[in-house]
Amino acid sequence: MKFKADRSTLIRALAHIQSVAEKRNTIPILANVLLSVEDGTLRLTATDMEIAVVEEVAAEVLRPGAVTAPAAVLYDIVRKLADNSVVELDHPGSDAPLALRAGKYATSLNVLPVDDFPSMVAGDLPNTFRIATATLRGLIDRTRFAISTEETRYYLNGIFLHVAEGPLGQMLRAVATDGHRLARVETEVPAGAEGMPGVIVPRKTINELRKLLDEGTSDIEVNLSDTRIQFRAGSVLLTSKLIDGTFPEYERVIPKGNDRILRVGKRDFADAVGRVAAISQERSRPVKLSVSPNLLTLSAISPDQGMAKEELDENSVVYDAPPIEIGFQARYLNDITDQIENEVEFAFADSAAPTLVRDTNSPSALYVLMPMRV
Amino acid sequence: MKFKADRSTLIRALAHIQSVAEKRNTIPILANVLLSVEDGTLRLTATDMEIAVVEEVAAEVLRPGAVTAPAAVLYDIVRKLADNSVVELDHPGSDAPLALRAGKYATSLNVLPVDDFPSMVAGDLPNTFRIATATLRGLIDRTRFAISTEETRYYLNGIFLHVAEGPLGQMLRAVATDGHRLARVETEVPAGAEGMPGVIVPRKTINELRKLLDEGTSDIEVNLSDTRIQFRAGSVLLTSKLIDGTFPEYERVIPKGNDRILRVGKRDFADAVGRVAAISQERSRPVKLSVSPNLLTLSAISPDQGMAKEELDENSVVYDAPPIEIGFQARYLNDITDQIENEVEFAFADSAAPTLVRDTNSPSALYVLMPMRV
Repeated sequence: MKFKADRSTLIRALAHIQSVAEKRNTIPILANVLLSVEDGTLRLTATDMEIAVVEEVAAEVLRPGAVTAPAAVLYDIVRKLADNSVVELDHPGSDAPLALRAGKYATSLNVLPVDDFPSMVAGDLPNTFRIATATLRGLIDRTRFAISTEETRYYLNGIFLHVAEGPLGQMLRAVATDGHRLARVETEVPAGAEGMPGVIVPRKTINELRKLLDEGTSDIEVNLSDTRIQFRAGSVLLTSKLIDGTFPEYERVIPKGNDRILRVGKRDFADAVGRVAAISQERSRPVKLSVSPNLLTLSAISPDQGMAKEELDENSVVYDAPPIEIGFQARYLNDITDQIENEVEFAFADSAAPTLVRDTNSPSALYVLMPMRV
Repeated sequence: MKFKADRSTLIRALAHIQSVAEKRNTIPILANVLLSVEDGTLRLTATDMEIAVVEEVAAEVLRPGAVTAPAAVLYDIVRKLADNSVVELDHPGSDAPLALRAGKYATSLNVLPVDDFPSMVAGDLPNTFRIATATLRGLIDRTRFAISTEETRYYLNGIFLHVAEGPLGQMLRAVATDGHRLARVETEVPAGAEGMPGVIVPRKTINELRKLLDEGTSDIEVNLSDTRIQFRAGSVLLTSKLIDGTFPEYERVIPKGNDRILRVGKRDFADAVGRVAAISQERSRPVKLSVSPNLLTLSAISPDQGMAKEELDENSVVYDAPPIEIGFQARYLNDITDQIENEVEFAFADSAAPTLVRDTNSPSALYVLMPMRV
């Protein structure tokens, strides 16, 4: 195998690929990237056996073939080459090292057999649809913070993507929850997604996918079965196993009758939460919201350091229901307000019941937050 | 105690002060900042009993007095206040909490008795001189990377500041070494420093001092005895204990007769070291320099990953002595080249002997590097 490629092309592809390769090296070949060239194309593949990423880029192919080499080292080396370098990679065959040359720089990288590189079989993926990059980004950004990290609740370690019947008809929904908060975002069902099964996409897959969405503006093609999902973003193909479990019936925890409505400016609210929570260095300490007509007082107590409070008045608050006092973890409030544009809407029932949070500009997203005792 | 101050004034002073306060809280009052006000001045003090930092800023004093409050929390709160806030701090006395108000934000901070706050006695500081901020910055930046972190060699855990007789007459010198490399930088002896004792300034003091040097351009006033040193930088006074030990006779390790001189462009050399060292993920792996007339080949070997090499030719290399092969730890080469402007000069004896490194533009700095076997 022998080819030449621009450093800029190579570094972009390796950046997409290398984070999928295993760092821990329990199975050495999973730390490698598979490079294969033919017909003017370089194909790079990395996998951890749960996810596989394949990218195809243009290359000057001098001798077709394939080889596997350490992904992290290759990425680091190519990153350090001069901007405008042309990189030549040359593998004479079998277990000879892979020679990389760029100008007067040369390296020999140890290789592992191509035949040992695991290939991930996607199988039949009967459901196919296209979705706008920005829409998919919105589904991910507004839900992934709520994904559970508790390994025992493995069925919560991803985003539940499914089609559901709502008041506006059928919608494609992304839902994540960790038992303390829930995020549900929906969008119109893309053509072809109507009959898709509900699937739980693992967190690592979501994070790898999200990186690819920073670049392109074209549509993403999605193919899936009930065990695999595949995303095609430009020249990159990401294939992943799905979490084999049942996502809980989340609709039951979304409160229906909450009728005490607080609207508050997002910037003022988020800043006040930050200042009030600053009294305590503990991550899980609650901030108390004391709400009365057109007045919101935020407060926090730290046994060691003291207490803090801040008032937001009718300049940023609208409320005309009976007073209520309710506590939430500051970090959870931040995670949600980070996704809200201008105005936060809280719908309370009472101090102990789940609270509904919405972005008044964006009815497609809905958050549920469990209160803390304060 | 009661005063008002601009948030911008307060945050700047707290930024200087708070990193000296203890984070670990083994002695609670060391995590606090002492605030004392009188005559239109707020004085902030933090100490870890080795270093004390005192800063004086303008404040509207409403009632003179003093209090101590948690430095990290106070810093975090003030940081999160709106840019143009005026902050009011009010302590009614004894163990009542300290009330902080800014707009509609209010906090009560637990306090500790002012009498328990340790005061650091500088004692008599007979030696006094002034030094330009940029000069002091140069002494620190070009030596502090070589300070030893080995606690058992406590006498190497700082910069040795002293007056020495050199070929150019008496000079003020800063020297640091960890046994593997040594950095020595000198400047003209400032008026008043002639008779000063040689002192070892601890690393934490150096780091706190260095932060203060980023701002002002005026001179720094230095006062010292053989046990204490004090730096006055604008409105900040930093007092520190000195390391009670004897700095080794470092002149003996500076080689005299090294006559194989290599000159190499700093950018090309540093980039090549980075690329060649990228073959190995280990921090301490050596890079081998193979030098022959007007040719420098850098190479590195990793048993796991392979090998790498790069040639630098007469476009960036000048050498006309007998060939030599010698190895150095990549990180040590980087630390030194980071301080060099355009061209690095190596003076070798042989592969096993200490090598002298200089910046051809800056004869005031000199580095010694021990080779590694390659």
